[in-house]
Amino acid sequence: MTRAGGRIFIVGLGPGAPEQVTPQASAALAQATDLIGYAPYVARVEAGPAVVRHASDNRVELDRARHAIELALAGRNVAVVSGGDAGVFGMASAVFEAIDHGPAAWREVDVTVIPGVSAVLAAAARLGAPLGGDFCVISLSDNLKPRAVVHRRLAAAAGAGLVIALYNPRSKARPDQLGAALDLLRGILPGDVPVAFARAIGRPDERVILTDIAHADPEQVDMSTLVLIGCPLTHVIDRADGGRWLYTSRRVGEACA
Amino acid sequence: MTRAGGRIFIVGLGPGAPEQVTPQASAALAQATDLIGYAPYVARVEAGPAVVRHASDNRVELDRARHAIELALAGRNVAVVSGGDAGVFGMASAVFEAIDHGPAAWREVDVTVIPGVSAVLAAAARLGAPLGGDFCVISLSDNLKPRAVVHRRLAAAAGAGLVIALYNPRSKARPDQLGAALDLLRGILPGDVPVAFARAIGRPDERVILTDIAHADPEQVDMSTLVLIGCPLTHVIDRADGGRWLYTSRRVGEACA
Repeated sequence: MTRAGGRIFIVGLGPGAPEQVTPQASAALAQATDLIGYAPYVARVEAGPAVVRHASDNRVELDRARHAIELALAGRNVAVVSGGDAGVFGMASAVFEAIDHGPAAWREVDVTVIPGVSAVLAAAARLGAPLGGDFCVISLSDNLKPRAVVHRRLAAAAGAGLVIALYNPRSKARPDQLGAALDLLRGILPGDVPVAFARAIGRPDERVILTDIAHADPEQVDMSTLVLIGCPLTHVIDRADGGRWLYTSRRVGEACA
Repeated sequence: MTRAGGRIFIVGLGPGAPEQVTPQASAALAQATDLIGYAPYVARVEAGPAVVRHASDNRVELDRARHAIELALAGRNVAVVSGGDAGVFGMASAVFEAIDHGPAAWREVDVTVIPGVSAVLAAAARLGAPLGGDFCVISLSDNLKPRAVVHRRLAAAAGAGLVIALYNPRSKARPDQLGAALDLLRGILPGDVPVAFARAIGRPDERVILTDIAHADPEQVDMSTLVLIGCPLTHVIDRADGGRWLYTSRRVGEACA
């Protein structure tokens, strides 16, 4: 499509496997003259030699968003890429935040957000059906959010019986935070509530660990891991082949949460 | 793939547009000898005349799950289909619940869950980036869950500053429930918190309404609508073309929630 002003596609690349990228996302990527995003996601996109790759570090979302807007207003077709779904702790929010705080002319930019299979949905599918009831998705990162807010949210969610999916559970800069979060949750949830660590789902280095809240060990978790904390209605099924499935009952009693 | 025992694929069909079905889902559907699901989803799948379609009403998830398991154990390749993602208020949980409560032999069935683009992700992408912060996903249906539990969860989520996505917001059997939920939330959230009604996203009859919690009118909502309730950090951007974007700031202050 030829457009005077260029445009921005904000594209969720899915969890990692090419067969989990939607045709809509692939079509948008095929139109791009420029790719912008965190370096490993930009590297994941196949594109011809004429496409310009603007790869950057993980902590510069707003700079990256502003760059995408300026390129689009200069007539380029820019694909801003994120892993999973770009709206879930990905680049979508940063692009709109940049527009909201930028010059009035930036409100003219043509932006389309293309959803993807988020990490939490991929991890849940790999495990069985742990999101069968109500759930929440919380980032444990305290880069942009005080740790006290994270803890209040975790306590509210666990107390209300929501299954909890944790993004960004651990980094070198905050090795102790997941342990503190698990300690907090141990004070609220029964010890046998299932916990899953789902690492790099859909990628060659995929690894899944199934445990419970009493025994969950933060040392088994890195930044590429999705941590899933069940609720009292989350059950483990022992499969005949020795594997296990995790699912959350849809039926909730009066006493629950 | 030929297998002695048959197998089950639980497949998320995405929000409705064919370009939002992942290649992984399409490949699984192409292997199916039998399609099982709520009639409108089964009808959405293209398949040859040899494929058997088992379409059913929306309230018989467990019967449908047991039927799928029996067919798979008889050697059929069964695709159990849901709209959006099958793990989010779709068929995945019902299949595992049936296995958990069924004969021991049912634990031998080969089950693969294939994630999809859920309605909440599609609606969020259409609106901008309203899920830019922490969020929760709650079904308002009281078929399987007491209304008191729904209200406790809504109050906990809003009080903790989570954006709230509501599935199954309204049906003929419970026309008053969304109004009661909104009244509850008006007691917790500032009146100018954005609310979006996103109906049939990605389908020809798509409709989006943007309002705020003070003015949200349940009469504009039906069962095909995803209701999205922002938090105090959810903002509206007026676009140059007269449209509006919704996004939630990633940066959270000490005072929040």
